[in-house]
Amino acid sequence: MDLHVSNRRKLLDSLRHHFADSSRPSHGFVPLQGGEEQTRYCTDHIELFRQESYFAYLFGVHEPGFYGAIDISTGKSILFAPRLPADYAVWLGEIKPLSYFKESYMVDLVYYVDELKGTLENLFEEKEKNPLLFLLHGLNTDSNNYSKPAKFEGMENFEIDLTTLRPILTECRVLKSEQELAIIQYANDVSSEAHIQVMRNAKVGMKEHCSYTCICATGHNSSVLHYGHAAAPNDKILEDGDMALMDMGAEYSFYGSDITCSFPINGKFTKDQTIIYNAVLQARNNVISSMRPGVSWVNMHKLAEKTILEALNKEGIVQGNVEEMMAERVGAVFMPHGLGHLLGIDTHDPGGYAEGLERPTEPGLRSLRTVRELQKGMVITVEPGCYFIEALLKPASENPATAKFFNHEKLEKFKKFGGVRIESDVCVTADGCRNMTNCPRETWEIEAVMAGAPWPLKQ
Amino acid sequence: MDLHVSNRRKLLDSLRHHFADSSRPSHGFVPLQGGEEQTRYCTDHIELFRQESYFAYLFGVHEPGFYGAIDISTGKSILFAPRLPADYAVWLGEIKPLSYFKESYMVDLVYYVDELKGTLENLFEEKEKNPLLFLLHGLNTDSNNYSKPAKFEGMENFEIDLTTLRPILTECRVLKSEQELAIIQYANDVSSEAHIQVMRNAKVGMKEHCSYTCICATGHNSSVLHYGHAAAPNDKILEDGDMALMDMGAEYSFYGSDITCSFPINGKFTKDQTIIYNAVLQARNNVISSMRPGVSWVNMHKLAEKTILEALNKEGIVQGNVEEMMAERVGAVFMPHGLGHLLGIDTHDPGGYAEGLERPTEPGLRSLRTVRELQKGMVITVEPGCYFIEALLKPASENPATAKFFNHEKLEKFKKFGGVRIESDVCVTADGCRNMTNCPRETWEIEAVMAGAPWPLKQ
Repeated sequence: MDLHVSNRRKLLDSLRHHFADSSRPSHGFVPLQGGEEQTRYCTDHIELFRQESYFAYLFGVHEPGFYGAIDISTGKSILFAPRLPADYAVWLGEIKPLSYFKESYMVDLVYYVDELKGTLENLFEEKEKNPLLFLLHGLNTDSNNYSKPAKFEGMENFEIDLTTLRPILTECRVLKSEQELAIIQYANDVSSEAHIQVMRNAKVGMKEHCSYTCICATGHNSSVLHYGHAAAPNDKILEDGDMALMDMGAEYSFYGSDITCSFPINGKFTKDQTIIYNAVLQARNNVISSMRPGVSWVNMHKLAEKTILEALNKEGIVQGNVEEMMAERVGAVFMPHGLGHLLGIDTHDPGGYAEGLERPTEPGLRSLRTVRELQKGMVITVEPGCYFIEALLKPASENPATAKFFNHEKLEKFKKFGGVRIESDVCVTADGCRNMTNCPRETWEIEAVMAGAPWPLKQ
Repeated sequence: MDLHVSNRRKLLDSLRHHFADSSRPSHGFVPLQGGEEQTRYCTDHIELFRQESYFAYLFGVHEPGFYGAIDISTGKSILFAPRLPADYAVWLGEIKPLSYFKESYMVDLVYYVDELKGTLENLFEEKEKNPLLFLLHGLNTDSNNYSKPAKFEGMENFEIDLTTLRPILTECRVLKSEQELAIIQYANDVSSEAHIQVMRNAKVGMKEHCSYTCICATGHNSSVLHYGHAAAPNDKILEDGDMALMDMGAEYSFYGSDITCSFPINGKFTKDQTIIYNAVLQARNNVISSMRPGVSWVNMHKLAEKTILEALNKEGIVQGNVEEMMAERVGAVFMPHGLGHLLGIDTHDPGGYAEGLERPTEPGLRSLRTVRELQKGMVITVEPGCYFIEALLKPASENPATAKFFNHEKLEKFKKFGGVRIESDVCVTADGCRNMTNCPRETWEIEAVMAGAPWPLKQ
């Protein structure tokens, strides 16, 4: 819970710093509303509860129905717990006293949700003015949904500010503390090990299957970028000669990991598989060796694209001048998604488009979830990929501006190939970066591990 | 998909039968709206999609964003698929043609959702009148939520009937066909086997853990009726001497199973565990041997209560006249939940309170999810339990009307016991019932299976 205390302190520092630079009053509260349990349609089936991420960041509360507030002038943190009916004890377990939450969540004060309005009024020191509430409101640039500002009874008695909080709080989340990095590292360790176990146990004839919305694709399916949903539910049988693309990561204490491994189901890379896999691996390696504070993520994306196009060019799958291909956005035919995204309490952590940053309009680049310059403390996924997607290859081969770059005969061979993606979680350090993911990446490492060798390999 | 064709035919027969008996017009459409994908709060994290149950019953569609309609006069079934954007093919997979859905889901016609209004108007034969739409609307008596009637653009051009459909369609779901029973049987077979594997593998020192909202409780936690949620997340360590209570079931082709096994973590029942376990087992056996069409479920609940109280009385845990205890609702102190619920596409299948049935007000009985008489084709869970819940024992021991029934000294021993529940899925047949669940139930069977014996035991 220390971590969430630090997160609150970080927000307070940022807010006070912001107010020192502006003419806005520096008093008031930051009230946040935690998530509520959801039932499935009209039934009483309760969906697995996951706390709302901004609320989780500041308060670390696991249970539904809470509110939290931070008093900006005193720095005090307050939790508001739902008042549970007596028969909760029979159906759902012990009703915990407020003191339990005060201690567990390391906050200064705890009240019930129905005491929210009165508590804020009482705590507010400058009684002559209306208390000012800084609410969470703004666009999530990945989903295009808006955060839902806290809402409670008696709220109309307060003055509301909807613009200050979200960019400042989001910025706190963008740059990870050492404690946050330690948790993300743990989630990565567990997930890396899980990936290795999957590699070792995948056998021809099994089914993809997976109970969550992971992407576990084999063969042709691995070219479906967001495979693994109701209409494409990870249900293919693993076939000899297929590549597998496993995109999955564990979450621990709210913080996540996001890792992709690509490997041949039968344990041996073919020549063609080696070509595509190594093109993507080279892109990943080039990006990771170039990452450091100040570097533009758009340039990293282009570096990955260029590396892949050069490899395809060398094998004659594309042909011509790679700079010209880049200008015509041929890279986006093979890698239509962005190079990576911020990672934290959300898999796609917010803050990718801080105020003033515009989304590019070109193919590939417009799919970037961030266009920021790298900063120390960011955790970002590096996930170049190379896919053979009919819906993109066909129009590009027919377009007079790009047709000349494609070797149709060679491409035909890759029609059923699917795709390869390699994804690692990388933390930006003061003078470079640190790869937090520990999976076999070289083709020979993968083949050895799949054949039963321990990981890491013995020298 | 045959099964869903039969389900639609069953609804048509019921509707036509209903109209033959009434003065209402027998023409019009039954339009249903399928479920939509949900994102988590403001993020782009997509929750695992599960089709809405009424829609699943009639159409068996796995994908989100569909509508369906049935033409009552012609019997024709029509699906309306969402029109997907071109880049769906890149991110989410092949865009399937309408003919694919027509064939897969065995319907007569398929259009796009944006053609819904026009299609219904065109199909409607009696052009001089406004088409009448029978929408799904009404209360789910388990959740107290209302079904959401289908909503689509241009709906205001139709006349709406909100009262006819839901009770008739719900009644179709209450009485299972042979095909439905076969699927529920399969889900039961898989889940029974899973329960046995859990029994065999549970070891002192493990953690409860479970990724879904199952109830996997050990020791004292097994008295928390709906254990296994965000505030009580299946996280206790399995201790020597603890009982485990595992309430979980698989779903197959939308139809579910719901099974509870209770067993000692260390593989050997203590004397006290045997007493409580056998009280519950006897209640289950008495109920199952009494179940047949025409029997009142309220009476079955009382039979279970009485059996458990008699066993507790024999051991001196309660004392006095069992009939008097029943009258004072002492049974509900030990079994505060209802005896069981209808099971089908929903774990708590709807229809428990058909029109005209009132919920009882007495403790225990008021928790019944149905008070119906049993009918052939119903699948219902039989799940008696006996728990030691401080929040109920304390007030009952202090209440002058009930205090005399409790032996406080003996009860003290059971304070940390938790509880036992045994749950089987039972199908009502023409002259009795059939237990669909195949798990070891006798204490010696459980001990043998936990020691490694194959199930079923060899004679």
